[in-house]
Amino acid sequence: MNTTEAEQLSAAAPLRVAVLGCGNVGTEVVKLITERGDDLAMRIGRRLELIGVAVRRPSLPRPGIDAALLTTDVDSLVRRDDVDLVIELIGGIEPARSLIITALEHGASVVTANKALLAEDGTTLYAAAEKAGVDLYFEAAVAGAIPIIRPLRESLVGDEITSVMGIVNGTTNFILDKMDSEGSSFAETLEEAQALGYAEADPTADIEGFDAAAKAAILSSLAFHSRVSSADVYREGITEVTAGDIASAREMGCVVKLLAICALTDPDDAGERAVSVRVHPAMIPRSHPLATVGGPYNAVFVESRSAGRLMFTGPGAGGQPTASAVLGDLVTVARNRLRGAAGPGESSYAQRAVSPIGEVVTRYHLSLDVADVVGVLARIAQLFADYGVSIQTVRQQGREADAKLVIVTHRATDAALSATVDALQKLDVVTQVTSVMRVEGE
Amino acid sequence: MNTTEAEQLSAAAPLRVAVLGCGNVGTEVVKLITERGDDLAMRIGRRLELIGVAVRRPSLPRPGIDAALLTTDVDSLVRRDDVDLVIELIGGIEPARSLIITALEHGASVVTANKALLAEDGTTLYAAAEKAGVDLYFEAAVAGAIPIIRPLRESLVGDEITSVMGIVNGTTNFILDKMDSEGSSFAETLEEAQALGYAEADPTADIEGFDAAAKAAILSSLAFHSRVSSADVYREGITEVTAGDIASAREMGCVVKLLAICALTDPDDAGERAVSVRVHPAMIPRSHPLATVGGPYNAVFVESRSAGRLMFTGPGAGGQPTASAVLGDLVTVARNRLRGAAGPGESSYAQRAVSPIGEVVTRYHLSLDVADVVGVLARIAQLFADYGVSIQTVRQQGREADAKLVIVTHRATDAALSATVDALQKLDVVTQVTSVMRVEGE
Repeated sequence: MNTTEAEQLSAAAPLRVAVLGCGNVGTEVVKLITERGDDLAMRIGRRLELIGVAVRRPSLPRPGIDAALLTTDVDSLVRRDDVDLVIELIGGIEPARSLIITALEHGASVVTANKALLAEDGTTLYAAAEKAGVDLYFEAAVAGAIPIIRPLRESLVGDEITSVMGIVNGTTNFILDKMDSEGSSFAETLEEAQALGYAEADPTADIEGFDAAAKAAILSSLAFHSRVSSADVYREGITEVTAGDIASAREMGCVVKLLAICALTDPDDAGERAVSVRVHPAMIPRSHPLATVGGPYNAVFVESRSAGRLMFTGPGAGGQPTASAVLGDLVTVARNRLRGAAGPGESSYAQRAVSPIGEVVTRYHLSLDVADVVGVLARIAQLFADYGVSIQTVRQQGREADAKLVIVTHRATDAALSATVDALQKLDVVTQVTSVMRVEGE
Repeated sequence: MNTTEAEQLSAAAPLRVAVLGCGNVGTEVVKLITERGDDLAMRIGRRLELIGVAVRRPSLPRPGIDAALLTTDVDSLVRRDDVDLVIELIGGIEPARSLIITALEHGASVVTANKALLAEDGTTLYAAAEKAGVDLYFEAAVAGAIPIIRPLRESLVGDEITSVMGIVNGTTNFILDKMDSEGSSFAETLEEAQALGYAEADPTADIEGFDAAAKAAILSSLAFHSRVSSADVYREGITEVTAGDIASAREMGCVVKLLAICALTDPDDAGERAVSVRVHPAMIPRSHPLATVGGPYNAVFVESRSAGRLMFTGPGAGGQPTASAVLGDLVTVARNRLRGAAGPGESSYAQRAVSPIGEVVTRYHLSLDVADVVGVLARIAQLFADYGVSIQTVRQQGREADAKLVIVTHRATDAALSATVDALQKLDVVTQVTSVMRVEGE
């Protein structure tokens, strides 16, 4: 920056920024806004000025953050007349929703990383932003630093996206990856992940798939120009995944991943295509691009009519990567504000229906403990045939009390498969259905 | 779309679109604008109307394109008062540059895929767009359908990008991939690529690295907020890559790729970091994310201070993928136009210097034909030491007339390595330096 430019920037009134929440991400955001002020100013065309950081515990030591900025009075902060840009990093539904709406109503543009809120009630937030003519940006809400919101909202907006499949939760990917490489159980791997800081003390949101489901709802809404909320997402976590499932996957040349799968269904009789959204563990071939995404990394695989297959990979969480996404949005909404314009708002014109899980068509891997008697395979094969589920491969393992069948089906509806499993459980030669897992990515 | 929305859209004056050039990409763009009119209208908030398609040969059959739209009078088309959006797909420097500038001066927003022009003279185009207060977008200019321009310009604009390394030319990637899998020579693989339509009749721009160099210039300018033109890019093509190089790479657990490498140098004494930009074939480990990018695919690997390592993968060329990128830009600039605002313009405030190739520090793989005499290794090792280039591994192969040394160095400057190679060529025990290739990605 030369002197004249610096003078011009200093002469103009700065854009005033309030940060709500100062955990890992908030701390990093505040530090970057402070340390990188000159660069951000040149990229925006105006200086940024931090006017407040809302925290719950102001007495905590926060190195690098000016203590004079800290406040516990978040309500007053978002109502200040001189706030231009609000960064919401509190998370959860309330008070985050009320604070964001208040900020938007007061004319501030908002940047948020709040996936749970966007997935539950994005429409209300969009409406408030639209009404006030300001921006609501949320690149950090899905897949951390990976640019995926902007590509869906803008780069691919002229295309017809047919599916988005992603590994969007780093904690579960770390756990499944460890289980695969070490042969360990879910419970012991979770403990290890917690000790290493990859899983929280209360890991429910991650391991039960709630976090991934929220991201799937956001991705589906953007990809298919329809309203999809968390409640629309079929969800299974990874707590039931066993070392045996992982070993079975390995024998098939597959790996187990927690996938978020968002897809358009085949056209119905009226030519309409619905949205199918689900989060569950699945086996995918080791040759699939998503199979190599290891540890805490995230990846999103997008298929569209014209562009074909695209993949986006990067760190899915963490203070610094998430702060990068927040700052990218901050610069963009600041630029928009200086131009007196807002970026894209909600696009839900397609109003597609959400298809129930029973109609999903995919392949399945099943493990059954069976009686070691003559004719057991014939009876089980007949039962699959009765329910219209075609078997691709069967493997018999063990003898006597350890007799097992490992079955992989051809493509079938989830409803047909569920009915098959119910019937299998009632069959006298089946001791137990020990595992049912979807097989994706082919 | 419901009836009311459709009526509202039909009532407003459409945005008028002119397409310049109607080859593979142009044909696809015109078809999509026509076929997907309703969706595009809902996504933009206004209908698009094609008002002209400039072609050189109007008599060619163009199925699916209204013949009444075709014109050879491209100058009049871009000067029409009623043109809102111009899509330039002619390519090359002139007349494309004059046409784009005329369109911008007449107040139209421009979408282009013209990497050569942007890399040679982007600044002139940006200035014309800025002066007219309209948009110049060019997602399709680099890596086809892969969203990379928008991520660099917007998603990562709050971060500090330290390097961008990519496979950005599908033709050369296809050829190197085939040479690797089939053990074939460059010349025969080029012929095969031409027969399959992956290489043009005149393949110079691809195989000599000009196409990749233009893309590297564009990526560097955006990533480092500085002006970098094609002339600033060090460039070597793949015509000298031999089957022997590929086999040597394989023995090292590497694969040969044509890489575009854009990086910030280490800070100098004044703390300034320059831009280093180069395109050349290089060996990278098979475990590197870029190593698995095969055939005509492209990939761009970005490292930044906060976000860490991101990778973007997808189809790098072809009519449909490129059209997807063009349409994404078209929708974005149309939205901007309706809001009376323009998107980001040139950002070159950092004014970083371009570092010469001699200062690049990397590793090298060398093959030498040598005399089979006692002490040859000692003399050659001493010569490397004299030039300050440290040897990591040496392999002696063959005897007598076929005696060879294969040497991999530690990191050294390009200048030191070049001086070493010059001296090796003068050494009496060296018959020939048969290959010198950089080793990257570690």
